Formats: sequence, C-alpha cells, structure tokens
Amino acid sequence: MESLIRQSTKVCPFVNKISQSASAASALRGSANISALAKRCPVMGTAVGSARHFATAGGNAATAAKVSSEQAHDAGLQSGLVGEHATQESTFDYDGVFENDIAKKRLDKSYRYFNNINRLANQFPLAHRDVEDDKVTVWCSNDYLALSKNQEVIDVMKKTLDKYGAGAGGTRNIAGHNRHSMKLEAELAALHKKEGALVFSSCYVANDAVISLLGQKLKNLVIFSDELNHASMIVGIKHANTTKHIFRHNDLAHLEELLKMYPKSTPKLIAFESVYSMAGSVSDIDKICDLAEKYGALTFLDEVHAVGLYGPHGAGVAEHCDFELHRRSGIATPIDPQTKKEIRTTMGRVDMITGTLGKSFGTVGGYVAASKNLIDWFRSFAPGFIFTTCLPPAVMAGASEAIRYQRTHLNLRQDQQKHTNYVKDGLKELGIPVIPNPSHIVPVLIGNADLAKKASDMLMEKHKIYVQAINFPTVARGTERLRITPTPGHTNDLSDILLNAMEDVFNELQLPRIADWERQGGFLGVGDKNFVAEPNLWTKEQLMLSDTELNPNIRDPVIENLDVSSGIMKF
Amino acid sequence: MESLIRQSTKVCPFVNKISQSASAASALRGSANISALAKRCPVMGTAVGSARHFATAGGNAATAAKVSSEQAHDAGLQSGLVGEHATQESTFDYDGVFENDIAKKRLDKSYRYFNNINRLANQFPLAHRDVEDDKVTVWCSNDYLALSKNQEVIDVMKKTLDKYGAGAGGTRNIAGHNRHSMKLEAELAALHKKEGALVFSSCYVANDAVISLLGQKLKNLVIFSDELNHASMIVGIKHANTTKHIFRHNDLAHLEELLKMYPKSTPKLIAFESVYSMAGSVSDIDKICDLAEKYGALTFLDEVHAVGLYGPHGAGVAEHCDFELHRRSGIATPIDPQTKKEIRTTMGRVDMITGTLGKSFGTVGGYVAASKNLIDWFRSFAPGFIFTTCLPPAVMAGASEAIRYQRTHLNLRQDQQKHTNYVKDGLKELGIPVIPNPSHIVPVLIGNADLAKKASDMLMEKHKIYVQAINFPTVARGTERLRITPTPGHTNDLSDILLNAMEDVFNELQLPRIADWERQGGFLGVGDKNFVAEPNLWTKEQLMLSDTELNPNIRDPVIENLDVSSGIMKF
Repeated sequence: MESLIRQSTKVCPFVNKISQSASAASALRGSANISALAKRCPVMGTAVGSARHFATAGGNAATAAKVSSEQAHDAGLQSGLVGEHATQESTFDYDGVFENDIAKKRLDKSYRYFNNINRLANQFPLAHRDVEDDKVTVWCSNDYLALSKNQEVIDVMKKTLDKYGAGAGGTRNIAGHNRHSMKLEAELAALHKKEGALVFSSCYVANDAVISLLGQKLKNLVIFSDELNHASMIVGIKHANTTKHIFRHNDLAHLEELLKMYPKSTPKLIAFESVYSMAGSVSDIDKICDLAEKYGALTFLDEVHAVGLYGPHGAGVAEHCDFELHRRSGIATPIDPQTKKEIRTTMGRVDMITGTLGKSFGTVGGYVAASKNLIDWFRSFAPGFIFTTCLPPAVMAGASEAIRYQRTHLNLRQDQQKHTNYVKDGLKELGIPVIPNPSHIVPVLIGNADLAKKASDMLMEKHKIYVQAINFPTVARGTERLRITPTPGHTNDLSDILLNAMEDVFNELQLPRIADWERQGGFLGVGDKNFVAEPNLWTKEQLMLSDTELNPNIRDPVIENLDVSSGIMKF
Repeated sequence: MESLIRQSTKVCPFVNKISQSASAASALRGSANISALAKRCPVMGTAVGSARHFATAGGNAATAAKVSSEQAHDAGLQSGLVGEHATQESTFDYDGVFENDIAKKRLDKSYRYFNNINRLANQFPLAHRDVEDDKVTVWCSNDYLALSKNQEVIDVMKKTLDKYGAGAGGTRNIAGHNRHSMKLEAELAALHKKEGALVFSSCYVANDAVISLLGQKLKNLVIFSDELNHASMIVGIKHANTTKHIFRHNDLAHLEELLKMYPKSTPKLIAFESVYSMAGSVSDIDKICDLAEKYGALTFLDEVHAVGLYGPHGAGVAEHCDFELHRRSGIATPIDPQTKKEIRTTMGRVDMITGTLGKSFGTVGGYVAASKNLIDWFRSFAPGFIFTTCLPPAVMAGASEAIRYQRTHLNLRQDQQKHTNYVKDGLKELGIPVIPNPSHIVPVLIGNADLAKKASDMLMEKHKIYVQAINFPTVARGTERLRITPTPGHTNDLSDILLNAMEDVFNELQLPRIADWERQGGFLGVGDKNFVAEPNLWTKEQLMLSDTELNPNIRDPVIENLDVSSGIMKF
C-alpha cells in the first residue's frame, strides 16, 4: 500500500495535490484506513456498480459510506478480526455516552431548565407557573404583536374547530389539502407580493427543506451564508451537501470577495436574515440583492423575526425598505404612474422569503413565498413538505386571520416599537448594557452563562418577571444575554416595573454595566467608543402614521372573499 | 489533462478502480469538470489546513467541499479563467431547472394534483370540496379513529384556546414550555410505559432529529434500516452521516447477516416500523429485539401508523404483542405475581418508540418515548427540537385528551378492525387485488401511475368517493395503489357503496384483477400461489372484548389529575 501511495502521489491529480501539504501527506500515509478513504472518493462513488442494489434511498454520499464499511468489514471477516468473536464482547455503553454528554452540559452551565410558563389570554402579558395563583409578567415571548390572545383570531379558530374538527387527517397529498391551506397560502403570497407560498410544519422545517433541496438538486450550487444565520438555515446548508462559504455578519465586502471567486454562470444562493433574532441586527437587503444580480445568485431571506413588525402591512424589513410605496399601493404591487409599469421593490427583488406563523402571527407553522415555479418545485420535491401531516385547519384559519388583522393594524407595529424604545432608553439611563441594534430586540448583555441564569432566576423569583437567559447553543459562549421582547401590551407602567427590577438584579449580582464593558474596550458594540449606531428602522414619521393612512385596498376582497376554487396557488 | 488521467489510471488506487468500469471511465474522460471532481476528493478535504477559519458551522464534508472549491477558483483566477470575466457571463438558468424538473414529473405522471378536501366534523366521514354543497365520502384519511371530530377533544381545545390563547409564543426554552407540553409528554410516556417522552413539530421532525443526532454523536454508529422505512427515517439516516445498511423488508436473516459483520462493541441502531403504512406489512418486534440484544444494538421503532390502533390501550403493535398482560395491568407495567418483579414486555424492550399526534390522535405533532436519559439527551442536543416554536397549547391539550379518550375506548380499535375486514373480504369477493397484510391498511394494487390517478378521479367524480392515488415517491414506481383506510365511522353500508364503486371503476378502466396478477406469476403477494398470509394482528377473541374488560387503572388519577409541578419529565 505504501508504495502504491508513493506512486499515486506522483501521478494522480488528487493525490499529487495533497502531497504538497506535509500534514496531509502524513495523514494519508499514516492512515490505516486508506481503502475506506478511497471508497469515499466522488469518482468511486458514482463508479461502483455493485453498490446499486443497496441504493434504495438516500444520496450518493450515504451509499458510498455504506459500501465502504461493508467492504472494510468483509476484509475484517476474512482476517478473523470480527465475526464470530463479536458476540463475546460487551455491548457499547450507550447510557454512558448520554449521561456523560448531559454531565458536560451541567458542568459548563449550558444545561437547560425549562420554565413552566402558561400565558393567559385574558391577562396578557401575565402567565401562571405551576400553580395558577403564581403569576409572572412575560417579557421574552416571541408573540410580538400579542395576536395569540386576539379575540378575532381565537374566534375563527373555535369556529373552524367546530366545523372542520381538530386535525387535517393527512399529508397535503392525501386528504390533508383544504380551503384553509389554500387561503393561508394565498394570504402569504399576497403579503409578500409573490406569486405563491407554501406552508410547512414550522419555519425550521421550511428553511431546512428549501435550502437543502436547492443544494441537492442544483448541481454545483455554492451557498453563501451569513455567519449569524439561524440554526435551521445552518442545518439546511449542511443537508444541502454542497460548497458553502460563510461571510462575516452583515459584511458585504466579504460576501462580494467570496462571490467573485466564481463565474457568473455558477449557480449560487445567498442565505441571510432580515432581523437577526438574538442580536437584533438588520441586514441591508437591497445591497445584497445588488450583489446577487451582479454575480448571478438566488436570494433566500429569512424574515421570521420581522414579519408583523416591519413594513406598512407587516410583510417584514423587505417591505419596510419601500415603506411609502407599499403604504400607498396596499396589497397590490406598486405601479409607476408615468409608465404604468410595476415598480421594482426590494421585496420584489428577493427570490425566496421565509417566515413563521408562530411569532407575530400568533399560532404555529412556517412558510416560503416565491415565484410560482419555485413554489411548485418545493411542493413537488421537498420531503419535509411531502411526507408530513398538514397543520390543523383551525391553526391555518387562525394564522390567516392574524395576518389579515395585523395587515390593517399599523398601530400594533408602532406600539411595539414605542415600547421597545422606552425600554431601551430606560436601560441606557441606568447604564445597563444593551447590544445596540436598529430593531425591536432588546438584548441585555451579561456575558456569562451562570450569571445570566442567576439574573433570570432572580427576576422570576423576586420580581415575578420572566426573561429567559439565552445561552449556548442559541448564542455563542461568553455572549450570554437576557433577551427582552416588548409587545403592544407591554405599556410604560409595566416597563417601569421591569426597569426597577433590572436595576435591582444588576446591583445584587454586580453585573457588568456599560462602563465596565467600556473599560474593557467594548464588546459587541457595548461600551465601544468607535461603534456607530444605525438609525432605527422605524422613523419618527412612520411611527406617527395612523391606520387610516394605509391604502384601503389592504382590505382587498381578493383575499377577503377568496374563492378557494381559484386560489392563487391551486395545483 | 487527458494524459494525466491516463497515467493516473495506472497508479492511483482510486482512478485505477474506476477505469475498470467502462462507463465510469468514459464519464471521467469526457468530463470537462475533472478538476471539480478532484476537489471533492475526501483526502483533499481533510488535508487542507487553511480551511479552518471558515468552519464556523457545519460538518467536515461541507467544509471540505467549500475549501476545495476555493482552491479551484484561486487556481482559476490565476489562469484568468474566472474572476474579472465572471460578470460578463450569463447567469445560471435557475428557472430552466425548476421548469424542467416539473415537466419531467408531468411526463412520468408523478406530478401531484392536490384535492381540496374539507372534512366536516359533524358529518364524518363526509368532506366538501371547493363548493360546500359538493360532498364526498373520505376513504383515505389517516384520522384512523375519527378522533379529530371527537366532541371531547374539540371541547378541550376550545377551552384551552379561550384560556391560553392561540399559540405557545416561543421555543420550549424561551416562554414555550407549559403545563400542556408537560401533561402531553407525561401521557405519552405512560402510554408507552417509558420514563419519558419528548414532543416535536411532527413525527417527520422527530424521526429525522432523533436518528440524525444518534448518528452524529455516537461515534462510528452503524445504522441498520428496513428498506421500506418511511422517508423521515431515510432522511434522518442520511443526515446521521454514518455507515448504514439497508436490510430487505422484514428479512431478519438478512438483518442478522449485516449485524454479525460488526463486533458487539460497535454502536448500532436498528431502525424499523411496526406497521408499514403503504403496504400494511408488520414487523416482528420481538425478534428484532432479540437480534438487538445479541449484537448490542439500540432499537428505534416507528409506531406512527399503529398508535391508537393496536394494543389494549392503543400504544401500538409493541403493546399488542403482550395484549393480555397489558390489558390486565392497565397503564402500569405488568408485574409477575410470583416474583413481584416487572415482567419484561416487548414494548419494554424497545429503546425508542416514535409516534404521531396527527393520525389516530387527531391533531398534529410527533414524539419519541424512551428512557429518561435518552429523552434528556434529545432535549439537550437535537436542533430540530431546540430551535423551533412549541406546538399551540390547544393542540397539545387536544392530543392529550385524544390519547386519554382512546385509551379507555377499546371499541374504537375493534370497530376499525371490523370495518377493515369487511372491506378486505368484499374486495376479495370481487376479485379486486389487495396487497395482503395483517393490519388495518387496505392497499388496492393498480401498478400504474396514470391508471391509479384515473381510478381515483373516477371514484371522486362519478361516485363521490375520495381515495387518493398513491404514486412515486411515496411508493415505488410500478407499485401505484389506491390506499383505503376505514375508520370506526365507515360502517358496512358505506362499505357496500364503496365496493360497488370499486367494481364499477375496475370494470370501466379494465384494471387488472387478482386473476390477472396470478397469470403474471403474482406481484407483491397478490395472485402469488406461494404466498403465505399472516394472521391478522387482532384475533377474534380480542375483537370480542368489551371496554369494561380493561383494567380500571387505565383511568389512573396519576394522569387524570397530573400535578404539573411533578410531571414525569420535569427538567
């Protein structure tokens, strides 16, 4: 084998290249398992005919791995290493692994204790804990617009339950496709001004399904991903099983550096978010679309933490970018009065927008909005869509109602913003560090897992305020935080109570203030003298508009009285 | 390049092997993209040290792919092939790919047209289509016990909506953990007599999350998977990114052959189902557990199409294996009256049981039931659990109620079985081919995608009966079928109407009968003279038991009045 490798090193274009790297060459020579490596060769993988009868399912990589181990073990059997001796050995210590992994989490303080939080619809933002009398004020829910307690939403859900029952009873293909899914998808398509939309069990599933499918089916796709992208996108990218590049958070120069390495004709996907949920930072959607056009990339935008909160109709930051245009055009695409042609908006430029029904829209589920072609393609090929039960009719009806309701209630978004500003200003006055951002997220920096949990526990036990401590893996170690999310229901008097409590907890636990971070040269923009704050997404003028200043066609009967027999995406 | 390849062919262990395959060699030589293939070489991937600073997230494979392409393009830039010229080229034709893929599906008749089916709670099993007056009888839903229309389930959901609102408002870690999730998980743990359970958005997500995590975290895990396993398990196995073997459907000799190739100490997972949903075949759980013990494997059992339908309390086929023991012991683990020790049951032997809330339990969602250690491990590490919004309180409360209700209503399972037998017998008398099985599934073999759709359409349009045609990718091409699923609500008079309609459709479309398959030597057990039918899972004696013969402790107050502060799986 040694001599074979030496010879290969001279000639094979693969091995030759490796031999130039000393570490690689030594790894190669030192490997007892060269044949196992060889089996994973992409050329081999497509070449070995005998593998085919095993390939009932799964991709080439899995097949290749399987084949290689079979061959390895065939060899092992012949040499008497395994086989008959197998049963005389002891079983692998599974429980030992599970226990050990959990023990490590307890040790590094990333072990999670769930809080029993029962949010009360009629006493929002209160929730009871184990005992019904033990009530706390919830300050960290993602029910951003408080729509989960909205009476119109709840009434629609109850009516739908009575008429259509508790569950859909099947996948979309088998008895689970109905007027509720069609209406919801029509609503979502209209919200984002796209040709179609497709609903999934969650946006975790939507992100994973969409990105992984693109990677698996667009040959040689290269994915460019913001380093702060949500776990669901990271998982989707991993499952895409193709070339990926991670660009520094919101660093478009870095993104361009990476994009320009490829010919324009190489298929590319830029995956990013509008509002990054744990830091509240916001991407420059328009500039990313510029780069996408320049380099021939598809754009995938996750608006999970933005829908309901930005744009005149709550379609997200992409809509917010052309606030006035959309405000005036309602749910229709803006038209140029001179040319009578459609105006190209930021939202219109994005190829795929994903969002959730579980946060601002008060229920559960996720979706992607895109061109009719793309939606039909996802519908036809994404296993995460095909092989799963449809959401319950009542959930979809409730989500539709929530979207309709929030579209016409600009004031929900404005109140949410005003309350956010009040809390941010209050914390600043107290010298309590908030990671600076132009959005609705209030991330109070703690920087230590143990202290973050202690602060959260003290808020709960002493002050009856629930703010969850955010730790690894949701945020990087050392950047632990308390993430506060005001809603329209979190009025200033409640904020004052929160601010007093925060001051007390910071005193009691001697948590680092802005000044402390400043002495350390700043961290994540906190106490950083060179940090230039971005202006808030919502301008003062936008915050002063009234609902009546929205175009009346936001109540367009196209959606209100949707004839389900001609739903936008009827297949 | 050509000469390099010729040389490599002689020496490189990889390329040498390929050259033995004519087609592969020609593909290799013909490829303009040899360098792209080379870059995907596994040796390269692990070798290049400079990759590390990009590896913010994702696995080695993705990193390797990324780095290799960077090098390719660095080289390309130097040679002037890409770079500045990039923007002068045309963009990749994305829409062309999407359209082409869809066109192929239309051509091979696997393109799917969704039927608008609105199942009416008060007129079960009727549903209306686009227009409310246009009603059809649904014969293919997975609402197996008709619990989605159960008044007690719906009432609980409406009450929960009123009190706790529409959505959970967060992940389990952040404001989304509540008494409903705790109660539901306690119910599920009790149902399967396991220490704990964990609820996911769906069982698709549960299967994917659980299997992929085991593969990713148990080093060198080898997975053994039944070839008919559901897509969610196949996806999970693919994402597990480890060695896998696929054993022939229910072929335990083949499974053992594969298992014995490894030492007992190698970690192993046997992944299988109890009832395979599209064929209705049933696995021998006990014998698989025997093999698992002999060879030191974990067992993963998907009971998605069995919960609610088998076992005295609806815990599935595993419970059904010890029917009398469980019937007598209620929700408690059976105790040996002599030794006073727990009796080892089939259900007790299985390490992980997954199930759904979206079929027999009438709502939506999925779960895994297992030891406390394993549940805590999944809870702590599975991204598909961690990074997603909790199901709505009303959905979880409804599912809990459905589980409680069906546990005490043996007659639901019995009626379902009796109606199934009636339909199967009726079809047999008509010579209409049903893929033989011992379960509740009635798969009518058509064997052609176009004809299956035509049969389904004719049942719908002419007979007002909805039975979805099942095609690729849900079943293999050439095995297309109509899958009929009777419920307790599908009484014999409705079955008679169905049988007449089936006879008409088989006549009109001249579909192959049992005799036709027999002339061809049989197919999938249909018309196969050598086929030995298995006895039904439900015996005649079991079908005659009354609800009162269940142990009264099935209504055990431990669950009925669960104190959420001491939920079985409170973390």
